[in-house]
Amino acid sequence: MPEDKKRGVTIVVFSGELDRALAAFNIANTAAAMDLPVTMFFTFWGLGVIKKEEGKVGSGNWMKRMMNVMDRGGAKRLKLSKMNMGGMGTAMMKKLMAQHNMPALGEMIKMADQLGVRMLACTTSMALMGLDEKDFIPSVKEFVGAATYVGNALDSDVNLFI
Amino acid sequence: MPEDKKRGVTIVVFSGELDRALAAFNIANTAAAMDLPVTMFFTFWGLGVIKKEEGKVGSGNWMKRMMNVMDRGGAKRLKLSKMNMGGMGTAMMKKLMAQHNMPALGEMIKMADQLGVRMLACTTSMALMGLDEKDFIPSVKEFVGAATYVGNALDSDVNLFI
Amino acid sequence: MPEDKKRGVTIVVFSGELDRALAAFNIANTAAAMDLPVTMFFTFWGLGVIKKEEGKVGSGNWMKRMMNVMDRGGAKRLKLSKMNMGGMGTAMMKKLMAQHNMPALGEMIKMADQLGVRMLACTTSMALMGLDEKDFIPSVKEFVGAATYVGNALDSDVNLFI
Repeated sequence: MPEDKKRGVTIVVFSGELDRALAAFNIANTAAAMDLPVTMFFTFWGLGVIKKEEGKVGSGNWMKRMMNVMDRGGAKRLKLSKMNMGGMGTAMMKKLMAQHNMPALGEMIKMADQLGVRMLACTTSMALMGLDEKDFIPSVKEFVGAATYVGNALDSDVNLFI
Repeated sequence: MPEDKKRGVTIVVFSGELDRALAAFNIANTAAAMDLPVTMFFTFWGLGVIKKEEGKVGSGNWMKRMMNVMDRGGAKRLKLSKMNMGGMGTAMMKKLMAQHNMPALGEMIKMADQLGVRMLACTTSMALMGLDEKDFIPSVKEFVGAATYVGNALDSDVNLFI
Repeated sequence: MPEDKKRGVTIVVFSGELDRALAAFNIANTAAAMDLPVTMFFTFWGLGVIKKEEGKVGSGNWMKRMMNVMDRGGAKRLKLSKMNMGGMGTAMMKKLMAQHNMPALGEMIKMADQLGVRMLACTTSMALMGLDEKDFIPSVKEFVGAATYVGNALDSDVNLFI
C-alpha cells in the first residue's frame, strides 16, 4: 500500500445512550474485522459506556458523586436515546436483539477488545466527573487528552463523532 | 485527478428527527450538486426517514409491531429534536421553510434521488425492526450491512455521522 | 509537505447544547494549537452557540420571534443535552469546570478566535430563524452556504458533525 494511502477508523464516543453505543461498536467491530486499525475515544457521557458495572460512584466532592449517582453508567445500564418509555422500550430493544441472535453491548465491547480496537478514555472528562483509571473496564488501557485523539484522526481515513 | 485523491461524501443517518434529516439531505444534495459521489447509510432511527408514508406497522411479533406503532416514520411524520412542543414547533418550522421557499424534506429526498445520491438501508436494523425492502420509498435501492458502509467511507473524503 | 497530504479539521456544529458545544471547541482548539487549520460551520441550533449574549429576539414575523424567544442562545445560556434537571445539572457542571480551572464555553470561543479558528455561520439557517450578521459575536466573520462548508471539508483530513 502506498504510504499516502491512510487506512483506519476513529470514533469519538460522546453519547452515553444504548442505541448510539451500539452503532459505534457495530461500525468499530465491522472495520476491525476488515483488518483496519480502529480507535475509539470515549469522552463526556461516553465514559459511561466503558465504566465498570459495579459502578462506584466516583470520588471527590458531593457534586461529582451526585453526577455519578444520576448517571451511573456501565454497558448494562444504558438507555435508548428515544422511546425509552421508563425502561420498557430499552428492555424491548434488548429482547429483540437477543431474538435475532445479535450480541448485547457488553459482548460487542469484548469482541472489540479481541479484535484489537483501541479504547481511549478522555482524561479531561474523567477529571470533571471524578473518575480514575480503576473505574473502567480492563479493555480501556489508555487514558489520554484530546491531542492524542486529533493525532490519531489525522492518520485515519474515516473519523466519526457519535 | 490523481488516483490517490479520493473524492466523495458518505453520511450515516442514525437519527430519525426532522432537523437532523434536513441537515443530512442539505449536505448530501449540496455535495451531489457539486458532482461528488454521495452515499447515505440509513440505520436505526434513521430508517424512519426513508420509510413509506403509508407506514405499514411491520411484520413479526408484537414487539416489532409496537416499535413501529410508536415510531411510524415517513418523511412527513418526523419531529424536531428539540422545541417540538407537542408538534407546534415542528409545524412552525415547516411553515417558516415554506415561506422561505425552502424545499420540504420529502422534496429534498426526491432531489437527492435525481442527483444520484445512493441511499442504503442497514439490513441489521431492518431485521431488528421487522421491516423489509417493500417498506421503503423507491429511492432506496440497496439493502446492505455495515461492511458495505465502511468500504464506501474508506473511499470517500468526507464521512459524517448524523 | 507533499501536496496530496491534506491537513486540517472541519466541524459542523448542529447542536445548541452546552456539552456538545464544549466538545466541539475542545477538539477545535486542540487542533488549532497543533497548528492545523480549523473551520467550524454553525448551522441550525448551533447558531445559538455564537449568538450575542444580549440576545435580540430576531426580526421578521411572529413565528421567527417566537422561535428566538424559546431558544434565545448565547454561550452563557446553553444547557446540557442530558441531566439538565431544570438548570441544576447545567449549573453543577459549570461549577465543576471552574473548580478544575477549565475554561468556560465563552472563554473557549475567545481562545478559538485567537488561535485562528474560522467560524462560519450558515446563511440558510439564519434566514429561517430571522437572524442577520449583527446578531452574532464578532468572532464570526463569514456567512456562507453549505457549498462553502463542503468545499472546506474536501480539503480537510478530519470532518466531524456534532
